[in-house]
Amino acid sequence: MFIRLVGTFPLKTLSKGKNIVILQRIYAISLKMKIGLIQQHNTADRSDNMARLAGKIRKLAQEGAVLIVLQELHNSLYFCQVENVDYFDLAEPIPGPSTAFFGELAKQLQVVIVTSLFERRAPGLYHNTAVVLDKDGSIAGKYRKMHIPDDPAYYEKFYFTPGDIGFKPIDTSIGRLGVLVCWDQWYPEAARLMALQGAELLIYPTAIGYESSDTAEEQQRQRMAWQTVQRGHAVANGLHVVTVNRVGHEADPSGQTNGIQFWGTSFVAGPQGELIYEASQDEEESIIVDIDLKRSEQVRRWWPFLRDRRIENYTDITKRFMD
Amino acid sequence: MFIRLVGTFPLKTLSKGKNIVILQRIYAISLKMKIGLIQQHNTADRSDNMARLAGKIRKLAQEGAVLIVLQELHNSLYFCQVENVDYFDLAEPIPGPSTAFFGELAKQLQVVIVTSLFERRAPGLYHNTAVVLDKDGSIAGKYRKMHIPDDPAYYEKFYFTPGDIGFKPIDTSIGRLGVLVCWDQWYPEAARLMALQGAELLIYPTAIGYESSDTAEEQQRQRMAWQTVQRGHAVANGLHVVTVNRVGHEADPSGQTNGIQFWGTSFVAGPQGELIYEASQDEEESIIVDIDLKRSEQVRRWWPFLRDRRIENYTDITKRFMD
Repeated sequence: MFIRLVGTFPLKTLSKGKNIVILQRIYAISLKMKIGLIQQHNTADRSDNMARLAGKIRKLAQEGAVLIVLQELHNSLYFCQVENVDYFDLAEPIPGPSTAFFGELAKQLQVVIVTSLFERRAPGLYHNTAVVLDKDGSIAGKYRKMHIPDDPAYYEKFYFTPGDIGFKPIDTSIGRLGVLVCWDQWYPEAARLMALQGAELLIYPTAIGYESSDTAEEQQRQRMAWQTVQRGHAVANGLHVVTVNRVGHEADPSGQTNGIQFWGTSFVAGPQGELIYEASQDEEESIIVDIDLKRSEQVRRWWPFLRDRRIENYTDITKRFMD
Repeated sequence: MFIRLVGTFPLKTLSKGKNIVILQRIYAISLKMKIGLIQQHNTADRSDNMARLAGKIRKLAQEGAVLIVLQELHNSLYFCQVENVDYFDLAEPIPGPSTAFFGELAKQLQVVIVTSLFERRAPGLYHNTAVVLDKDGSIAGKYRKMHIPDDPAYYEKFYFTPGDIGFKPIDTSIGRLGVLVCWDQWYPEAARLMALQGAELLIYPTAIGYESSDTAEEQQRQRMAWQTVQRGHAVANGLHVVTVNRVGHEADPSGQTNGIQFWGTSFVAGPQGELIYEASQDEEESIIVDIDLKRSEQVRRWWPFLRDRRIENYTDITKRFMD
């Protein structure tokens, strides 16, 4: 029994008496949450990648995880290192084979799973889409990556149409999840919009790594910048942040670069941006992190940033530049 | 000669030949900037506080600082620990005695000074206002603190009317400065609006400290949250951040609390959020930090966040909450 009273839960659907008591009890329990993170090294063997994920999901669920977060595009290699039309073959409909696969696992194990899929919406129309499977195996909701990068070796604008369903948190049986994807993590606007809609934590499946020609010092600066800006979102919004990144080396099929060394460092930060857990830079990890969502409201009482926002003066945020 | 070509500089006012050469040379020089930070312990002796600031400003200017940043409300104690109408006597008009005092120093020493004053705009109408004095002693511009906190021992809503001139960077002879004040530092919106208007660095005069009843662990978490969110603004906007905080203990005049131990930790972060300098938690400091503004454009080329903002989907940032 893991029904939870979330903000949008339709109270009128509840019968009186016993159910109310159950809901209260469950509410108190569910503020402490065990989150499973799977930081994996992928290969070109898609079915092996998925089988390994399934094994780890089973283990984490057995260990008590109620929410399991996977890395960005976890079924395959990070194919965006080159622009190749054949890679569109990796895309799939939603719902489709992967939502069935992970949905079945979610149902069997009674966990919520945050997946990250290459969505084939129509021939020639593809998205980078996070799909949340609820404990009953159903699709709780999906988020289509809104901010699409394009850097050497990260040619995402070639593959992914920018999301058109906006920044909407996803309601699940364990709470309202602010699911965003990778490049979104650099944008305070995305985190804020999730928070303003009552997201109870921010979740970022990610694929980011080192370029081998950068100095070790520059690599470190980039990795810390990536973590710092997300810890900043935690602080600004008084929310936990859960980020899961891939790990290990993937070669550049074109041979033009030395490939990407994904930097791992999956982490969970608390609502003051404090690191609760940080994974290795170079090893696979499958780990449970305990968080207490009650902390979020406590921090927001101390630091009531939402109270003092000067919303009447924020209009120009919607401009490209003010010149 | 420290004229600098900034974005809004009226080119038509320049004569040809020699001046152009001078401008180019100065432009190249001024991308490297020596910034002076003064982290001071204040007492109730206002004239002594100001005299000590003046001495440090002179020394920093002699050592080559072109921009000197003072802490929030640097002339007085942090009087907001209690609500007392008599403290409105500390307020002064702008322009007024303090802008004359620091303006004269700026002119003598050929430096830009960022001050933080208690502004008396009209009887019964007061603001927390940062004033930038340019090298010719003139007021380059002012910023009235937009986000006003109100926590036990930080009763600022009693003293300060929220700013009504919005988030506008201030043009000076050394560049366009995104000056904000203290509580603003928790708001990504404020930093973003400054960046969208071409601010070349973000500057936060600040007064924040520990509450003695918090555990050492909680104090540390708060101090790091404060720094992390600002380093996050640096990352999200590809800008340097300069924050100057006061230091030392100030008693609570009401005796209800143990007063505030201001945590110092003034710092400069680079455009990847990396700490370039961090001051002591408990000592006065008067220090020059070297930054290179060219780094900002380099980082923005690597990480072109401004390119990919989904501005058409940010409209709801102007809502209080989306319920």
